[in-house]
Formats: sequence, C-alpha cells, structure tokens
Amino acid sequence: MPIAVEQFILDPAYRGTLQRQLQEIVTAGILAGRFRAGERMPSSRGLARHLGISRITVTLAYTDLVSNDYLSSRGRSGFFVSESAPRPLSFTPPAPAESRVDWSRAIGQRFPPAEIMLRPEDWRSYRYPFIYGQTDPRLFDHQNWRKCALQALGARDFAALTEDSYGRDDPLLVDQIIRHILPRRGIVAEPWEVLVTLGAQNALWMLAQVLLTQRRTAAMEYPCYPALREILTQSRCIATEVPVDVHGLPPADVPAATDVVFVTPSHQCPTSATMPVARRRELLARAETHDFLIVEDDYEFELAFTSSPTPALKSLDRGGRVAYLGSFAKSLFPGLRLGYVVAPEPLIRELRALRSLIVRHVPGHIQRATAYFLAQGHYDAQVHRMARAYRERRAVTEVAIQTHGLTVAGASGFGGSSFWMRAPPGVEAAELARRLRARQVLIEPAGVFFGAGRDPGTHYRLAYSSIPVDDIPEGIRRIAQEGVAMAFGA
Amino acid sequence: MPIAVEQFILDPAYRGTLQRQLQEIVTAGILAGRFRAGERMPSSRGLARHLGISRITVTLAYTDLVSNDYLSSRGRSGFFVSESAPRPLSFTPPAPAESRVDWSRAIGQRFPPAEIMLRPEDWRSYRYPFIYGQTDPRLFDHQNWRKCALQALGARDFAALTEDSYGRDDPLLVDQIIRHILPRRGIVAEPWEVLVTLGAQNALWMLAQVLLTQRRTAAMEYPCYPALREILTQSRCIATEVPVDVHGLPPADVPAATDVVFVTPSHQCPTSATMPVARRRELLARAETHDFLIVEDDYEFELAFTSSPTPALKSLDRGGRVAYLGSFAKSLFPGLRLGYVVAPEPLIRELRALRSLIVRHVPGHIQRATAYFLAQGHYDAQVHRMARAYRERRAVTEVAIQTHGLTVAGASGFGGSSFWMRAPPGVEAAELARRLRARQVLIEPAGVFFGAGRDPGTHYRLAYSSIPVDDIPEGIRRIAQEGVAMAFGA
Repeated sequence: MPIAVEQFILDPAYRGTLQRQLQEIVTAGILAGRFRAGERMPSSRGLARHLGISRITVTLAYTDLVSNDYLSSRGRSGFFVSESAPRPLSFTPPAPAESRVDWSRAIGQRFPPAEIMLRPEDWRSYRYPFIYGQTDPRLFDHQNWRKCALQALGARDFAALTEDSYGRDDPLLVDQIIRHILPRRGIVAEPWEVLVTLGAQNALWMLAQVLLTQRRTAAMEYPCYPALREILTQSRCIATEVPVDVHGLPPADVPAATDVVFVTPSHQCPTSATMPVARRRELLARAETHDFLIVEDDYEFELAFTSSPTPALKSLDRGGRVAYLGSFAKSLFPGLRLGYVVAPEPLIRELRALRSLIVRHVPGHIQRATAYFLAQGHYDAQVHRMARAYRERRAVTEVAIQTHGLTVAGASGFGGSSFWMRAPPGVEAAELARRLRARQVLIEPAGVFFGAGRDPGTHYRLAYSSIPVDDIPEGIRRIAQEGVAMAFGA
Repeated sequence: MPIAVEQFILDPAYRGTLQRQLQEIVTAGILAGRFRAGERMPSSRGLARHLGISRITVTLAYTDLVSNDYLSSRGRSGFFVSESAPRPLSFTPPAPAESRVDWSRAIGQRFPPAEIMLRPEDWRSYRYPFIYGQTDPRLFDHQNWRKCALQALGARDFAALTEDSYGRDDPLLVDQIIRHILPRRGIVAEPWEVLVTLGAQNALWMLAQVLLTQRRTAAMEYPCYPALREILTQSRCIATEVPVDVHGLPPADVPAATDVVFVTPSHQCPTSATMPVARRRELLARAETHDFLIVEDDYEFELAFTSSPTPALKSLDRGGRVAYLGSFAKSLFPGLRLGYVVAPEPLIRELRALRSLIVRHVPGHIQRATAYFLAQGHYDAQVHRMARAYRERRAVTEVAIQTHGLTVAGASGFGGSSFWMRAPPGVEAAELARRLRARQVLIEPAGVFFGAGRDPGTHYRLAYSSIPVDDIPEGIRRIAQEGVAMAFGA
C-alpha cells in the first residue's frame, strides 16, 4: 500500500515552486512521523493526476529527496521513504507552566525600549512614502549583489564563510574599506586601525561602552539620533546636549569638561546641516585644548551629489582623537547590518575585545559578499546610480516644496536623502503625519529626535530615498494641502 | 589614442576568472584616475593579444562594464570610459598623526581579551586535526545551502533581506525553530517566547546583562566554557564556581543565594558529561525552592546519535524558570553566527530591547536562508549525515584510544563531537599539544576551561568533528607515542 495521495494537499498561498512545495510536504510528513521508513510513495503518475500538476515535477521532487536521503529509489518499484530518513522524535508537550517567577525583580537591568518606529511596517504599500533610510529596490543592483553573494558562498571561500574567526575581520573587506572607501574621505588607515561592526549603531554602542563610565561626560547634538540618546542613557555617563545651528554643532558650546563628543558633521542627524571646514578645525582644536575625543558618525557620505564632500573630521585629525564611523546601510541596505570604525589602534583593540565578548565576530559571508561587491566595482556603480536618482528627486522635491509653499528648516549642503521641515505655524507635525497617512502619504514627525516628552511638535523629516520621482509633486501637494487645512482649523 | 595595453597586467595569484580580473583592472584604473572619462579602451583584439587571452573574455568584460556604467560602447568605434563613470576623489594624505591622547586614561572600561585560540589559524593544513567546533566541508551540504541562500536573495525576499527590521525577527525562521527544532527537545513555545541571536555566545552575553548586576549572584560549572567566565567577570556579578562530576553539575552544590545558574546539561562543556533526568528534576526543584533562574546552554544537542537525547531542562520546566539557548554553530557552521533563546515573554522582551540597542537585529539574509534550509528538509538531512559520520568517527576513535591506552576522563552519553581526555601522569597537556603539533597532530589542551593561572595541566579535549575517519588511528597512535615518550622523560 503506497501512502495515500490524499495526504498531499497543495497550499495556494505557498511562496515557491510546486516542486519545492511537494518536497516540503514529504519532509514534513516524514518528520512528523506520518510517513514511515520503508513506506512506498504514491506513483509519480498518480500523484501528478491527483494534484493536477505535471508528472515531471513529481519525479524531480522525488529525485531531489533521494539525494537528501529522505527517499530511496528501487528502480521500477518506485520511491520509498528511506530506511535512514530522519526519524521523528517523540515528546510529550509539558503542562502549561505556572510560573512563580517575579520578573520585575528577576530582571536586574532594564533597557530602554529601542523600537523607534518612524514608519509603519507596511510602508511599501503607501503611494507617497517620504520615509527615510530604506533601500529603493528600483535602485539596488540586485543582480550583481546576488552574484557576489553567490561567489562568497563558493567552495573557495568555504573557510571564510564557515569558520569561527574569533576576533579577526575578513581581510578582503578591510582591504577594500582602506583602499576603496576611506581615501574618498581623505582618510588613510592601516588594517589594525579598522574594525568591522554590525552596522553604525553597533559601533556607537561599543564606543560608548569602552569610552564612557558613570564618571565620564559625553556631549551630543540636540536634536540627535534617538538610538544614540538611548545608548548614552544606558551607559549611565553624564550626558550634555549641545543645540545645533544651521552649521551643525557649535564647537564653543561643547563643555570643557567633556570626555567624548558624538557628532554627525557631514549631515547632521536629523537637521541635515553640514559642518563647514572652519568649524571642523575649530572642533578639533577644542578637542586638543580640552583633551576630549570625538566620535564622528559619517553615516551618509556616499550620498554626496550636490558638491564634493567636505573632508571628514578624521582626515583633518592630527592628534589621533577621532573615531570615525562608516556604514553600508544607506549605500547598500540597512538589513545588511554592516559598518566599520576607524580609530587609533589602542581603541580598536578594546573594541575588538568587546565585540568578541558580545558576538564573537560579524558573520563571515556578509563581509565577503560586500568585499566582492566593492572589489568588482558594483559598489561604485550603485552609489553613482543612487546619487543620480537622488539628485533628480531632490531637485523635483525642491521645486514642489517651493510651488506649494512648504517650509524647509534645514538641508544638507552636499546631498543626502532628506529635508528637515517645519510644519505650518500652529500645526502639530505628529497630527499632520497622522492625517496624511489616511491620504497615502507618509512623513516622519520628528519628536523622537528631541527625546521623550520634549517634542516641540514643530518639525518633520521628508525623505526622498524611497519615493519614485514622478510621485513626489503630488505627495508634496497633499502635504501642503493638509497643512493649510489644519492651520485653518479644518 | 586608446589607453595603452601595457596598463593591463594580469596577476597570476588572482583568485577569480580572467573576466573578473579584467573588470577589476578597469574599475581600479577609473577610480584611481588613471583612466579618464571619454578615453578609449584598448580594442578587444589588441588587449586579448597583449594578455594572451581569448578575445571573447575581453568583450564580455567590457560589456559587463557598460551595464555598470563604467564604460560606454560607441558601436564600431569601440569602448570608452563612460562620461558618467564614478570619478576619483582627490585627497591629500594627512601628515602622520602625533597623538597626545593617553589611551590608558581615555579608555573607561576594559574588556578581557576574548581571543581564546585553542587551535592555530592554519589548522586545516594539519594532517591530524583533533580540533573542536569547526565545520567539516566534507559533511556540509554546500549545494543546498547555496540554493537556499540564493533563494533568500531573490526579488521576493527583497524586503526581508534589505529592511531595517528594528526589533523583529524573521517570522519564517521563528516558525521553523518552533515547529521543527524545539519539539525534538520537548519544548513548546510561542513566537513571542523566542528571540534570534547572533550565536549562543551573544545569547549568553545578553542574558548576563539583563539578569545580573553587581549585587546578583551567578553560579557556573567548573570547569566551564571560557567565554562564559569572561562574560560573568565583565558583568561584575558575584560568580560562584560549582565543580562538576561525571553527571555534570550537582544541584545540591548550587548555593542557595544564587540568582542565576548557567548550565550545559546535554553535554557539559568541556567534560562532555550528560546530566541524568533525575538530576535535571532535582536542579529544577532546587530552583523553585531557592527562587533562582536557569540558563540552559544546549549547544550541541543535534549531535545526539548514540541514544535518544535526554529531554531539555526547559521541557521539564513547570515554573517558567529556564532560558533555553540553541545554536546553529555545530549543525550548520560557526561563522554563520546564528542562535536563539527560548524563555518566558518578560525576559524575551528585555533581551529584545537590549539587542535593538546593540545591533538592532540579526542580518535578515542569514535568518531567511536558514529558514529555507530548515523548511526544505536540508537541515535534517545534514544533521543526519553528520550524526552518521560522527558515530563512525567516534567508534573508530574509541577503538584507537583503547588500542593505544589513552585515558578518557569524560564522554557524553549521547554523542557529541569530542572526548575529554587526561594526559599521562606527569605529562603537561599543553606541552604534549606543543610537541604533537610538530608531528602534524592538533589536540586542545584544556587549561583555558579552568581559568587563567589555574590550569591543572592534566586535561585535553580530543574532537573528531574535523578529522577524516581514516586518519584517526594514526593520529591517536602519535598522541599515545608522544605521551609515553614524555612520561619517560624523552
């Protein structure tokens, strides 16, 4: 008696080929103990007829299952569940747990809820998503990324991919960062001055752990990247906020007693201000005078397209006081979780020891795939393509903003992917965003950059990195229309 | 004047196709400013002749560079550096930094050097590598892993791959863990009771952060996994060591004042002891009585092949006191950096917040590729294949150990991938390992499991997960021979 064809039911919602679905039905049946070792599978003809699919699909699925040792083939007698197929393991589900644990006591250290969602999860279903920092699939070089990822999965790279590398980074990636990326920012670095991280936030967090204690003082920009505020809060250091102006952080306002300054000079987050070179030199001089360190978060420099980027603070740093942070989140995609720190060797050494402790190392495959993407020039082509698209989108956005009379509160001197906007007088940015959502428009109210309970309600961020250029004018029109309606009490 | 063919020099050590190398020469030339916008490339015929390669290779390389916008094609006039090719950015290398920074003061928190190397980096070049925890490429299902990784890179998965997912895990992976992996350990869990981590060590580290403070007490096994010792040291909690016996951790020896116990019941690290079910129940009862929590590190359960695995502590836990840790490091490969925690929801919530703070989330592509590998049954086939190979290797190792009179100090009741060995009387294990290295044999002296400065010098670990079965007898023979020579003062 072969296994009954009725056990096979296709799921119309299945995301994958028929062959794969068939394989999953078989493996699930074996693992659940419904199909037992030695049992005969339905004939390919019979199963194909039952499911209304081609016979070759069934045969291919069976053959693949043979190579995985789920099935065995006995020539003309057909296919059987293999005698050495994985066995289901029996278990008795435990009774529902009755916990006496007092979790409010058991948890020794609480961490701030870091879920700062500026966009709904289903943002891709909105027509006018002016949302920040997500990759536009229309601009991403999917094909070459797949090629590089596949190359990095090759037999030649097996060790790099699979081994526990302890504290080491992929030398190919470090080499590419040093030869290919840093020179554009004027930065010269040796391999031991570079550490690969799980994105820029991971780098910020590690720097805070190593450089700050309860007795140390950090200075940060105000408003600022909310995750940085959380990181500093959690480090329990003394944190000072320094309000930014149109040129970013004013160096003279950094308190003399500061130990570490966290700054975003290329493109202040969130106001977009670019710090002029003179001010950069002033900040470095102040760091020398008062013996503080600088953490330079250069999270978006690749998107410089309106003019040449200003040299990084790090490139002007003669005193070895700057830790420079780069990220592939904007130029590739944020889900990659890949960034790097460039800093003097004693600091890198401590960061590396901390990283070993918390995650051992960054997954090998990600590093190698990115190294290939860089080495083969796809990265440059990609950044170039993005810059071209963003330049156009920015120009269209600017025109629409003028046409419809929106108020820009800040914009980067060199490009980037967003404008810093002020809502009309009397209009709460958060409420404006809520109402626009019902009209298919997403903007990002900026309260989160000011800290909990301190939202002046006045600003929002308008990003053009995910919206098609043709949809920009209508999106802006709706924002203006809704703003006017609210200002006049509609 | 086209660019001179002499600018093209092939590197015989290049690891990749000729076409790719050619592309890299062109992109490097453009990015370095040697090849300028508008310049004509050498003819494909001329360049092919110069390099002694086929003309079609040159043409394919050029064509690909056109699609990346490095080159443009002008029909019969040939290929030119594209006018919109990425421009080299000029910079002046800074003068060598003269740092006044006193790093011994600037670094606020030091982390223990976490580089515990039990094996040389070039271990794959040794003939008899009895080293632990690295994937044997002969057993890994490379082809299907590539297939799944590629599938996860597909357009359909673009959002999962690229988006910043904040605190969320890949629902497909969580579903596979719950439906596919946990039931074999007798564990029933809801999605909100599972957190994906960057490997087991990352999970241990996060649990220590959340559950321990300077005023809390942790109990750990002695000897134990050295990274756990570092994690507990760094957390500054009060840490107690509880010596293990042949059945692992003796519950009665866990101090009553303990807040959290870290335990490896399936396969004690490093002694390989498996904790009997009665003792597991006793440990759970003691946890209830003294109101402590248990962290169960079940890092190697998939390699259970000599008998059915004992149920996980977590599966017996009625009080909701156990946080269970699993990892794909042994069953897939350690460089993947993927693991998970199963624990009551209030604890998972805190761990998730902490993870968001330090790394945001685990890279999306890794999660999705693993989910496919599980869903399509490759994972089971892989574990099955490994178990079969390890069973054979273990049997051969056991025979060789008996034949040559080595001393086993501990072995798992259910399988695993190593033996816990005692060096001959008077022989220092570290010295034995050093001498064996010169004879192509790698063993792991076990001092590191006892803590710095406390190596009794007596034990070593003998793993069979990376050595081909046919080489085991000769490897063991050499260990025995060297041990005897040392014992007799040679």
